[in-house]
Amino acid sequence: MKNNIKFAMLGGGSWATAIVKMLTENADIVNWYMRNTDAIEHIRTQKHNPNYLSSVEFHTEQLNLTDNINEAVADADVLIFAIPSAFLDNELKQLTVDIKDKIIFSAIKGIVPESSLIVGEHFHVNYNVPFQNIGVITGPCHAEEVALERLSYLTIACADTEKAKLVAKHLSSDYIKTKISDDIIGTEYAAMLKNIYAIAAGIAHGLGYGDNFQSVLMSNSIREMKRFIKRVHKMKRNINDSAYLGDLLVTGYSVFSRNRMFGNMIGKGYTVKSAMMEMKMVAEGYYATKSAFLIVSKHKNKSKTPILNAVYEVLYENKNPKKVFKELTEKLD
Amino acid sequence: MKNNIKFAMLGGGSWATAIVKMLTENADIVNWYMRNTDAIEHIRTQKHNPNYLSSVEFHTEQLNLTDNINEAVADADVLIFAIPSAFLDNELKQLTVDIKDKIIFSAIKGIVPESSLIVGEHFHVNYNVPFQNIGVITGPCHAEEVALERLSYLTIACADTEKAKLVAKHLSSDYIKTKISDDIIGTEYAAMLKNIYAIAAGIAHGLGYGDNFQSVLMSNSIREMKRFIKRVHKMKRNINDSAYLGDLLVTGYSVFSRNRMFGNMIGKGYTVKSAMMEMKMVAEGYYATKSAFLIVSKHKNKSKTPILNAVYEVLYENKNPKKVFKELTEKLD
Repeated sequence: MKNNIKFAMLGGGSWATAIVKMLTENADIVNWYMRNTDAIEHIRTQKHNPNYLSSVEFHTEQLNLTDNINEAVADADVLIFAIPSAFLDNELKQLTVDIKDKIIFSAIKGIVPESSLIVGEHFHVNYNVPFQNIGVITGPCHAEEVALERLSYLTIACADTEKAKLVAKHLSSDYIKTKISDDIIGTEYAAMLKNIYAIAAGIAHGLGYGDNFQSVLMSNSIREMKRFIKRVHKMKRNINDSAYLGDLLVTGYSVFSRNRMFGNMIGKGYTVKSAMMEMKMVAEGYYATKSAFLIVSKHKNKSKTPILNAVYEVLYENKNPKKVFKELTEKLD
Repeated sequence: MKNNIKFAMLGGGSWATAIVKMLTENADIVNWYMRNTDAIEHIRTQKHNPNYLSSVEFHTEQLNLTDNINEAVADADVLIFAIPSAFLDNELKQLTVDIKDKIIFSAIKGIVPESSLIVGEHFHVNYNVPFQNIGVITGPCHAEEVALERLSYLTIACADTEKAKLVAKHLSSDYIKTKISDDIIGTEYAAMLKNIYAIAAGIAHGLGYGDNFQSVLMSNSIREMKRFIKRVHKMKRNINDSAYLGDLLVTGYSVFSRNRMFGNMIGKGYTVKSAMMEMKMVAEGYYATKSAFLIVSKHKNKSKTPILNAVYEVLYENKNPKKVFKELTEKLD
């Protein structure tokens, strides 16, 4: 592998902005693709992303900003995707550059709706990228705290440990510690599922349940997550590692989480549609709930994911959250 | 076992008050011992504990209030202790009534300093109470939420399942769900250790670490708790059950936890002594830290409890919290 690795960041949101900040601590030049040309112009002239983590100042000479995804991808060795999973497929359709020999890391939490696959699998199946070249960047990590340079731990997962190490090296700094994992499937599912449990936490909060219940909900959530992931991809993993439990906690306890906020509105009586309109942004857990429920439905024993099932009933079957959660409380312990 | 079981609550704090509230939902009469005669008089005349959970209204005809521990204990079948572990031994010394045939449940989190034993062991060793008659009542449960009748889950542990069920039945209500366990040693140690990790969370917060680090700290804490308890008492248990992980989370994430608050002051630069004076109450984790550290020190491999060790160094070896926690961050993942 050559020494001077070139990274391309695909996405212009807060998590993308945070990762570019991490990369520029180490790399000379980072290609950065985003659709929003106004934001690109603003970063070029003002050195800040106007929409996300606007306190972060970039050295613009380190950034190859472009609104052309092919330009960003062409000369890059490692592509890091941080585009919401619901929009990913649309973006990828614009690709004319072949990506099958690139190293691809996903910083996306969720399932690609068009393929019902987690991001790594989506690249493998639809773009012929070998699993050895596919990785995952996962938290626990609020992008906002990266902006403040508050100590955060990332897990970098890839079947090929050398590639995980390479990416980890380029993300590490005084305030970012990295850990290597070979569990790309498990970490991706964990990153996706935690958003569902954050919605559940939000619904409970909106319904008036307190901190005692929240802790029971989280303790049941991590056990449910363990069962879910084990069923999908059996391998030796400690579900209490930061990439699983830590990621669940940082989201489930965050009052800033979009998913928790979305759930909270549902719990308070908003319809799903009005909560979405009010938020003006995508709560990834909304799509994740459907995808995860479909996966579970293929298996016989649905009762083993009571929290996921409850969120699904509220979001997709129009059931009364108060009633559904009252029933859920009987299934937890 | 007779049908009409009589309970005695020993202690007048918030957790004792919450448990008396639970008991009076089911029992006709509860004996309630506390030292504070003014509080007793206030409860008798005003129906509220003036010092703790003062929103809770009692039906005073259900309460046998007394400042004489022997009077409370004499005709009771089940004694529930909710006296801070640091004061327990002093109270027990006043006992003239023989308690070796009573059923004894501890709702205390901590180690008895005089004996360096957890509460159950203390009763067994010093009062000849057989382990079959000793149990533990544990959360996750903020007493304040019991006062508000917010749904909470308790774990009732006893080697004798029938006795656990009996106590559980008397604590259960619309807002209290109970679970039975036979792991009295593990649940007691968990209840004790979580206060140490709450102090760690407080110190980290006081030092300026953020939510990302907090989630990593909690994810490392539960793994450390698992190792600690396994070493002390090996049996099959799921550390992610509510009595262990849930209890850790409800305390570690609570801004109201005395232990977290105590840690926070230390992190902000208070000395241990001034933080204690400022708080005017006992942070049980302070004593627990010393006891737990002594237990670990008897074993060879100290490196397996880096969080406990860090808290010990700050509280008992007068080391600089900033430096100690900087070193700790290198040991977490």
